[in-house]
Amino acid sequence: MIKKVDHIGIAVKSIAEQVAYYRDVLGLPFLGEEEVENQQVKVAMFQAGEIRIELLEATSDESPIAKFIAKKGQGIHHVAYHSDNIKEDLDNAKKQDIRLINETPQMGADNKQIAFMHPKSTFGVLTELCSEE
Amino acid sequence: MIKKVDHIGIAVKSIAEQVAYYRDVLGLPFLGEEEVENQQVKVAMFQAGEIRIELLEATSDESPIAKFIAKKGQGIHHVAYHSDNIKEDLDNAKKQDIRLINETPQMGADNKQIAFMHPKSTFGVLTELCSEE
Repeated sequence: MIKKVDHIGIAVKSIAEQVAYYRDVLGLPFLGEEEVENQQVKVAMFQAGEIRIELLEATSDESPIAKFIAKKGQGIHHVAYHSDNIKEDLDNAKKQDIRLINETPQMGADNKQIAFMHPKSTFGVLTELCSEE
Repeated sequence: MIKKVDHIGIAVKSIAEQVAYYRDVLGLPFLGEEEVENQQVKVAMFQAGEIRIELLEATSDESPIAKFIAKKGQGIHHVAYHSDNIKEDLDNAKKQDIRLINETPQMGADNKQIAFMHPKSTFGVLTELCSEE
């Protein structure tokens, strides 16, 4: 079951350049930074109520984030929903003809299991499911 | 002060076409629909934990949503943060050289006061502040 949004992922050229905006203009607590090697990104996390804002900076030209920025510019990259059973929710999505980018969950930031659904199936919104386990 | 995300606004061609995805695939409770005349949009709201997902459908070709879709296609349009004092937060943003689309708050969906900051100032993320009063 999906109960809430976990985070909003934002594609950025430089985390360093944007920290002041999120911390001082929006006033969101900065939670720290982490590198996620298999996604080729560095992630900076801010708390916004029960969800997080995650700034995603590519660590290689092959990173999905580098490709996204080359095509669309900086901006909102995806919405992630928190699932309490990611395999069941992926199965449910598949049964309802949603195309999955990840058929099985991958390791994401914060030691979470994550999987993306394809934006062609979700009306242009790249959508991630993530869970703790 | 900004304490949390209020909603994520998603530009859609047709709310009717997407309701089943948000309700049945993501399983989010549908809260209802509303027209916001001064923004030239129809809004369908879903609850996702403490925030809402708002599907935005243009009610005229001059609607900002129609223009957004013509330029970028369907997808995430903006992130809205809940402010407990929107005038103070707009002043604070302005002092930190953020360009405002709305210098003074406008009436938005759900009887909220809303104001947008310009995505050129916010690294490509169209950002709304909203408050109850």
